[in-house]
Amino acid sequence: MTATATAPDGYTPLVIDGLQCGPYDRDVFLQLRAGGVTCATATVAFWEDAVETMDALAAWNDLLAANADLVVPARTAADIERAKEQGRTAILLGAQNASPLQGRLGFVRLFHDMGLRVMQLTYNNNTEFGGSCYEESDPGLTRFGREVVREMNAVGMLVDLSHSGERTRRDAIEHSALPVALTHANPRSLYDHPRNADDATLKALAARDGVVGLATYRSICGHYARTLDDWCAMVARTVDLVGVRHVAIGTDLSPKAGAAEFTWMRKGRWTRGEQRGADLGTSPTSDTDTDTTEWLTDASGLAQVTTRLVDFGFTSDEAHAVVGGNWLRLYSAIFEGGHGS
Amino acid sequence: MTATATAPDGYTPLVIDGLQCGPYDRDVFLQLRAGGVTCATATVAFWEDAVETMDALAAWNDLLAANADLVVPARTAADIERAKEQGRTAILLGAQNASPLQGRLGFVRLFHDMGLRVMQLTYNNNTEFGGSCYEESDPGLTRFGREVVREMNAVGMLVDLSHSGERTRRDAIEHSALPVALTHANPRSLYDHPRNADDATLKALAARDGVVGLATYRSICGHYARTLDDWCAMVARTVDLVGVRHVAIGTDLSPKAGAAEFTWMRKGRWTRGEQRGADLGTSPTSDTDTDTTEWLTDASGLAQVTTRLVDFGFTSDEAHAVVGGNWLRLYSAIFEGGHGS
Repeated sequence: MTATATAPDGYTPLVIDGLQCGPYDRDVFLQLRAGGVTCATATVAFWEDAVETMDALAAWNDLLAANADLVVPARTAADIERAKEQGRTAILLGAQNASPLQGRLGFVRLFHDMGLRVMQLTYNNNTEFGGSCYEESDPGLTRFGREVVREMNAVGMLVDLSHSGERTRRDAIEHSALPVALTHANPRSLYDHPRNADDATLKALAARDGVVGLATYRSICGHYARTLDDWCAMVARTVDLVGVRHVAIGTDLSPKAGAAEFTWMRKGRWTRGEQRGADLGTSPTSDTDTDTTEWLTDASGLAQVTTRLVDFGFTSDEAHAVVGGNWLRLYSAIFEGGHGS
Repeated sequence: MTATATAPDGYTPLVIDGLQCGPYDRDVFLQLRAGGVTCATATVAFWEDAVETMDALAAWNDLLAANADLVVPARTAADIERAKEQGRTAILLGAQNASPLQGRLGFVRLFHDMGLRVMQLTYNNNTEFGGSCYEESDPGLTRFGREVVREMNAVGMLVDLSHSGERTRRDAIEHSALPVALTHANPRSLYDHPRNADDATLKALAARDGVVGLATYRSICGHYARTLDDWCAMVARTVDLVGVRHVAIGTDLSPKAGAAEFTWMRKGRWTRGEQRGADLGTSPTSDTDTDTTEWLTDASGLAQVTTRLVDFGFTSDEAHAVVGGNWLRLYSAIFEGGHGS
């Protein structure tokens, strides 16, 4: 069914990409299939409010129905395992901001009802919930933020801290009754960028059984983006730091994004000024040597990862954990819901 | 558990009220229990847009959780039967207008995800979906209206035509792949009011296996509202007209509504003028003789209905069909969804 590379031990890995951006079309679904990707978490909101996010969810319902031979909606870990058996890609829906809540605690449950399973507390700005990695001052998880984390635990939605500031990350890791995630970020000790996470944060995340999805987004990888071997070296070093149980993939891929999409991600409606987001001083033209991810221009490149991790010294079990098993375990622990309230 | 009157044949009827207005609090839930009501469909929107309706749904989630000893949310017919076993009242959520869609076809599925199971295409005004019973001209079910009916069939949401104009009612009955409802209306041949339905409409509804919930709302009952015996006479005459399989209860009760709620129902945001809605020329002060429903000031009065229907000449099976069985059958046929798309 899929073009997945078979691992040396003979069984095909279950590959999960914990964070992608879009936009999506049938081409992208074919790339996911070519990459042997069983599940991808797609972004439905960066700055969108409630109704705009519902527009995105409704569009996803239509897109999934129109491409049912390739993709299926996922709302549980079991949906992902079923997709694997069917040779299809399960699409999980996530938000990179809590803007869909439009200031309402009760909307956490309603968006969960509509299929949202992952949500960041902040994107690139401080919010009523916490601080962003790009602000001068991160005030930490707010009282409202604590309420939202508790509600996400109760309904079964994964707390994502990828774009949050270090203080908010630490607060949320501590406050959450369940493990949390950095769905797409790298260790700052390997590449110094505000989007990346301190070793102490990563260790705290792992101590509560959370998962970090290592990004392939060139601007936050530095030289680790150059080749797949370089990226595998980042995986190995992160595993040394936090343990193989806590490292996964979160590419941040958006192969079909154009100027309009990047402008929306970077500027939303909050500024007319120049905002490069993660690109900061390392725009494509400023450093072509380190800013190219030639090995992964779209998800089809993920087909190589499992075997290369094994070549790199990982056992087959370890490689399988990194390429999908760790996300599946975390999703399974979170999505069933019912944890406190 | 409940104070339900036991029917002459010894078993307690499953009572469903197909339409109530609110507002709700614990007192109202206790009235439902006292009335032996196993399920009530509560209104979450009259003129509310998407986010306002979500606010109402979120408030319901909290209210249900806070009164879980008395009430449970219902999303399927099985939920209603389970509530009966537990001696609790299942709350179904419905909208008396399609305003929550905010012009979007795709929101039908999203509101279904959030728990909405019944929706009118129009309330008191013509909409983009069809015509209201109060407008001078009812243009019938529109192209958008047909799309919405088809989508409601597909996702499993009951089409309610209670406030629609006669032409829109007939169009929707014909267009819908599944039975539809008048959740709260009476035969116009028994009491002439624009909110009530022509015999031909009622017969068409029944021919497609739909259900009409007879209202106790005094303004659309006329003299049939005076006593329970009068109301039972209306039931009997409606049964003569369309058959016992197609007649049910839809009280339109709102025991806790005050001036603010009635003003919102009648005027929404569309007029500053006087709008009496169903009261029209028969306001409480103009005709106290026919405008009093002394036997049903709140849902506790429903405890008397089953036995009185039997006294009135209905068999026990017939009485059970009218007080709940017919709604349960229709809900079961609709809510499973998956009919075309």
